Amino acid sequence: MGLVVQKYGGSSVADAEGIKRVAKRVVEAKKNGNQVVVVVSAMGDTTDELIDLAQEVSPIPSGREFDMLLTAGERISMALLAMAIKNLGHEAQSFTGSQAGVITDSVHNKARIIDVTPGRIKTSVDEGNIAIVAGFQGVSQDKKDITTLGRGGSDTTAVALAAALDADVCEIYTDVDGVFTADPRVVKKARKIDWISFEDMLELASSGSKVLLHRCVEYARRYNIPIHVRSSFSGLQGTWVSNEPQGDQPMEQAIISGVAHDTSEAKVTVVGVPDKPGEAARIFRAIADSEVNIDMVVQNVSAASTGLTDISFTLPKTEGRKAVAALEKTRAAVGFDSLRYDDQIAKISLVGAGMKTNPGVTATFFEALSNAGVNIELISTSEIRISVVTRADDVNEAVRAVHTAFGLDTDSDEAVVYGGTGR
Amino acid sequence: MGLVVQKYGGSSVADAEGIKRVAKRVVEAKKNGNQVVVVVSAMGDTTDELIDLAQEVSPIPSGREFDMLLTAGERISMALLAMAIKNLGHEAQSFTGSQAGVITDSVHNKARIIDVTPGRIKTSVDEGNIAIVAGFQGVSQDKKDITTLGRGGSDTTAVALAAALDADVCEIYTDVDGVFTADPRVVKKARKIDWISFEDMLELASSGSKVLLHRCVEYARRYNIPIHVRSSFSGLQGTWVSNEPQGDQPMEQAIISGVAHDTSEAKVTVVGVPDKPGEAARIFRAIADSEVNIDMVVQNVSAASTGLTDISFTLPKTEGRKAVAALEKTRAAVGFDSLRYDDQIAKISLVGAGMKTNPGVTATFFEALSNAGVNIELISTSEIRISVVTRADDVNEAVRAVHTAFGLDTDSDEAVVYGGTGR
Repeated sequence: MGLVVQKYGGSSVADAEGIKRVAKRVVEAKKNGNQVVVVVSAMGDTTDELIDLAQEVSPIPSGREFDMLLTAGERISMALLAMAIKNLGHEAQSFTGSQAGVITDSVHNKARIIDVTPGRIKTSVDEGNIAIVAGFQGVSQDKKDITTLGRGGSDTTAVALAAALDADVCEIYTDVDGVFTADPRVVKKARKIDWISFEDMLELASSGSKVLLHRCVEYARRYNIPIHVRSSFSGLQGTWVSNEPQGDQPMEQAIISGVAHDTSEAKVTVVGVPDKPGEAARIFRAIADSEVNIDMVVQNVSAASTGLTDISFTLPKTEGRKAVAALEKTRAAVGFDSLRYDDQIAKISLVGAGMKTNPGVTATFFEALSNAGVNIELISTSEIRISVVTRADDVNEAVRAVHTAFGLDTDSDEAVVYGGTGR
Repeated sequence: MGLVVQKYGGSSVADAEGIKRVAKRVVEAKKNGNQVVVVVSAMGDTTDELIDLAQEVSPIPSGREFDMLLTAGERISMALLAMAIKNLGHEAQSFTGSQAGVITDSVHNKARIIDVTPGRIKTSVDEGNIAIVAGFQGVSQDKKDITTLGRGGSDTTAVALAAALDADVCEIYTDVDGVFTADPRVVKKARKIDWISFEDMLELASSGSKVLLHRCVEYARRYNIPIHVRSSFSGLQGTWVSNEPQGDQPMEQAIISGVAHDTSEAKVTVVGVPDKPGEAARIFRAIADSEVNIDMVVQNVSAASTGLTDISFTLPKTEGRKAVAALEKTRAAVGFDSLRYDDQIAKISLVGAGMKTNPGVTATFFEALSNAGVNIELISTSEIRISVVTRADDVNEAVRAVHTAFGLDTDSDEAVVYGGTGR
């Protein structure tokens, strides 16, 4: 008995059959004695179809109107889901983001949630209804305009509502069984993770794991809302993401949670930067002013003979053109030699809080790559993550090699012994 | 220079091309120096597609959720129209019924407008924007739930907004050139009416003319908002509906405005009703209690020999089953002999305020039917309308004969001379 927030993605409600299947699952949670709030995305391809329509009438759809358009998608799926639930003999009411009290800033197409005032949702579930809420959308605090939350918005809606309603758990239903130790499309022996800490999940999410987005996990960590990622197609337990293991899960965390990879980034190298204070700042101010988000940044010691150094960073390929243009404008002021742009790279990351206390992780990682014949181009680390950049062509082989080296393969029971010292 | 409310139906915004065409027309009105508010319906078949989806998940979709679902349709068309207008270099903002201040009662699927508080629309147009408003929808006063207005809802939204904003005109754009003297699909020589009074338009609308619904005309009459019905495909002047003729239109109204017909009704005859006080009341109370709307009611004098009379009435075919069931239950109490149900009928109505002062209209009407070999089954009249019920098979021929007899055919210039006396 408790309050459960469930979130279903577009692939779970792609058609009438899917909606009916989701309705059954929702009713099951209700029958188990829970109050149930459901957050739902737009049906399957609806959003893409709406975007196509928008581009037919206008090459540059406007932010405010684009949000008004896209939010029709969840309106359709949530009303249909409420109908399907009522058809099973249970009471349901659907609510738009605005009605559910999802208050955002005014940045259309990628608004941020400022506050959640779920008074109507609370009343609805207290009256015995199952409340269905449109994911991905809100209403702006100042202008009362409809906004959308951008990528991963529906997951964030679910976690934000769970926090505001003090829910016991936020269940994120998707088309996979949970979070895996690596992408199962690449690593056949990838293992479903039963429990992972917020910290490790945050690192996986920012390293290319697509099951949960960083933003949603960050929100859940801040308000300490356990997330249960699971399949809407099977009845299996999925992956719990929380501060502490749940129920009978082992208290001790695995040393390595998983291997993530990301082929959506490109690498920019600024060659021949004068090695004096302020140069790097000037470079990254130019990048920031063009509103480009960057990921890894690497600078090595400069060659003593020239007093020049190279600075490399990675960024989404989609932002590459903008970043290079911004940098070209600073060339005279900074006085660098040249720019190199390379979008044939992959980032491979090893994530696990255990690496803080287990020496030799880095050595094992690099040895595995070396044995697989994979060359390392950049290295960057955080306290619980090691990332390397390699050639894009090498990525699948590299991920498999690392996954095996750390004993993550499903049929492997052997403990991994680290021989080196330090990280 | 003034404030114009324009309404575009689903066929006018059926696809991206239609939306772009409408955008151009809207911008033209703005360029002519007007403030422009646009009410828009859902794109072409959107509503039907949503209804199909609803029926796939639930055989009896619920009122509240059904409204939530259907209102997605206008949300899409209004956002796309705003984008298309912005693409032409003009500012536009779209508003849901709720945002536009369309306040309704709580009767889902056929809510009535209680109040319109168009503060945001006023601000938007005062700031120089073209305001786009979702037709057909509102928000309930008590529960703040999304409602839809039912049939003809978008036209009513337009007229209600025009009234609340004190607009100079409400332009209803549709796929025909205006209101005709008869249905042009039946009468090839039907003539477009340049101006028609609210009263005559109300009678035409309740007699089967589908261009404007009774509800919308009634609203316009109450607040004295001139309606201009015109085609969104041509640039032609359409039909003005108002208290007084506009501009250079002839001050004198035609004797007969038009001939309407309706094949959507059925006829019920209650045979052998005891001719004493209270029997008819008992019959129609039973009908009313089953929420069936009836149209014509006819009772003739009873046969002196039996003391029994017959009562006939017409009603929408779709309500026939409900009405007959309700009547059967009263058979014992009322003591009538039998019920006859006939759905192979047509209603033909002649409408014109001029008939009040021109004797012989009824005679000419019935002579025309007689000459065409059409038998009259029921007759019912109001001050400015005569309606008859005939066999459904006869309807086209009957309408054409009457249209010609009253000199309404386009190539006919002759005045009609009435020979009879009285009506």
